Amino acid sequence: MSGKDLADDRTRQGRGSTATLAEIAREAGVSTPTVSKVLNGRTDVAAATRERVEELLLRHGYRRRRGQQQPTPLLDLVFHELDNAWAVEVIRGVERVAKEEGLGVVLSESGGYPNPGQTWMDEVLGRRPTGVILVLSGLDEMQRAQLASRSIPFVVVDPAGNPGEGVPAIGATNWQGGLAATRHLLDLGHRRIGVIGGPPQWLCSRARIDGYRAALETAGLEYDPELVRSGDFSHETGHALGLELLGRRHPPTAVFAGDDLQALGVYQAARELGLRIPEDLSVVGFDDLPLTRWVGPPLTTVRQPLTEMAEAATRLVLDLARGREPGATRVDLATSLVIRESTAPPATA
Amino acid sequence: MSGKDLADDRTRQGRGSTATLAEIAREAGVSTPTVSKVLNGRTDVAAATRERVEELLLRHGYRRRRGQQQPTPLLDLVFHELDNAWAVEVIRGVERVAKEEGLGVVLSESGGYPNPGQTWMDEVLGRRPTGVILVLSGLDEMQRAQLASRSIPFVVVDPAGNPGEGVPAIGATNWQGGLAATRHLLDLGHRRIGVIGGPPQWLCSRARIDGYRAALETAGLEYDPELVRSGDFSHETGHALGLELLGRRHPPTAVFAGDDLQALGVYQAARELGLRIPEDLSVVGFDDLPLTRWVGPPLTTVRQPLTEMAEAATRLVLDLARGREPGATRVDLATSLVIRESTAPPATA
Repeated sequence: MSGKDLADDRTRQGRGSTATLAEIAREAGVSTPTVSKVLNGRTDVAAATRERVEELLLRHGYRRRRGQQQPTPLLDLVFHELDNAWAVEVIRGVERVAKEEGLGVVLSESGGYPNPGQTWMDEVLGRRPTGVILVLSGLDEMQRAQLASRSIPFVVVDPAGNPGEGVPAIGATNWQGGLAATRHLLDLGHRRIGVIGGPPQWLCSRARIDGYRAALETAGLEYDPELVRSGDFSHETGHALGLELLGRRHPPTAVFAGDDLQALGVYQAARELGLRIPEDLSVVGFDDLPLTRWVGPPLTTVRQPLTEMAEAATRLVLDLARGREPGATRVDLATSLVIRESTAPPATA
Repeated sequence: MSGKDLADDRTRQGRGSTATLAEIAREAGVSTPTVSKVLNGRTDVAAATRERVEELLLRHGYRRRRGQQQPTPLLDLVFHELDNAWAVEVIRGVERVAKEEGLGVVLSESGGYPNPGQTWMDEVLGRRPTGVILVLSGLDEMQRAQLASRSIPFVVVDPAGNPGEGVPAIGATNWQGGLAATRHLLDLGHRRIGVIGGPPQWLCSRARIDGYRAALETAGLEYDPELVRSGDFSHETGHALGLELLGRRHPPTAVFAGDDLQALGVYQAARELGLRIPEDLSVVGFDDLPLTRWVGPPLTTVRQPLTEMAEAATRLVLDLARGREPGATRVDLATSLVIRESTAPPATA
């Protein structure tokens, strides 16, 4: 047990707080230095012992006192998967703030799984970063407790809108984005507007489609479930579902494609059917990835401020790390419509 | 001075090697622990003292003995700039190998400058990573010496082909790529082929254009400098120089665009001039970014194996870190032509 942890221990007792390290050690049937090792992510402790100690830390709600053991000048940034066109937008935002603050950024990927896993967690406990930022990735209750007991704060950059109860998160106004995209098409004169959402279990996708529906209904139009499809935010589903929508007897004159990659899939479907964009079909995306400026025609889309969201998440986790009271721990940044050349009045209008 | 550094020192004396820490301290007029602090990237040493010690470490070719002080399980990955469509391809390759090896990846950006700067170097010396991987970014002689004296190896992932003498680097066969792209267009029957290169000072760009020239000349055609332009690998220069080439009295029937973003700029130029791809104009890119599959028409391009290059660079730096003798420290991985829908025989053929 280090002198720092001893001091920590005494302070806790003095504050009449939850169990001390010594009490947890006694209850676990191990020495106090062993508990200290577990706290510091040392791997030279038997797995069963670690597990028992972790459970007791969790049960007693143990919190390492901030400032007793300095974190390293690193932030951990974890992605659900890096194989994704907007990862770099998020990385840039985190990098920008980290550089200002003299912190390094350790990047990980949870390999497509919703949770980064215990190997990652062990590495983090050993690294003792100043904070953790997760992108479209979550932590289970035990992992949250492990970070909390080491006083390592975490924040979710959450374009999907599913952070979980009480989790600090920075998102985007998806509902307003869906509303703005659809109102733009209505203003151009479109009345039959198809929509392709993302995975229905993602709240961001529901919110965009709810915005679409609100735009229709506040304009006095009926919501037609036949014009609504659910993809997985990929080019492939945009293409397949675009063909489905455009192959209908009364095809839509415009499609709100849910995200930019699906919009490019709709572009491909339109090309295959000999439909010109925007003369025969208007298309709106969501995200405003750089490539939307380079496709033909340049895509009208809803800008999601991914870099700014990442910056805000980084500032929030640093506030939490420094014990400052942040203004709000759940913030949605504004989306905005970017009108380019893929939208025009319908030919039949 | 730590016990480890003392042991290090004694070993060096025993080997009759270059100056010991104690000798360097004496020559610098400081204590041996101060030299040890400088070696460990501690910032609590006066700047002038640090500089003097660094100079002496450099002059004496001091090398910390491998294995005396364990590096941290981190790799430092530095980009020239992250605002670049293929950064994520490289990150994925480094991540994949790092994860297998249980290492974290610390990501930095040199803010568009060719060199990551001294602040970054100070952070690295403090972090003591297992190795450093630079992407399109270089180190000056002093920085190389600083890493060498701490036995921190570094490797360059070098799509630009300018690693510098003796620097371990993984590149790609740019010349063969330019040759293959141009031969494909010649095989289709094109005889007037324009080319847009990148910055002329980048060797990768020269190599691609030299490959283009070799394809023409080995086919018995003359190299016409009027059909050659230099851009900066961006969509914007592809557009502007595409308009220039296509606006000529005898415009080319095909353009080898140097990279994928310039190819999309040529797409835009063709659209503005009412030229259809591939009926009126064939276009070939370079890189094979994911977005080339999603544009209309999907782009024929030369695949540069960025993820594999990053994996190879990571394995190389780990070999160096572990004192294994690597097979070769300068390797170019093969490029390959990916034929999609942007190339066809010329209308006039």
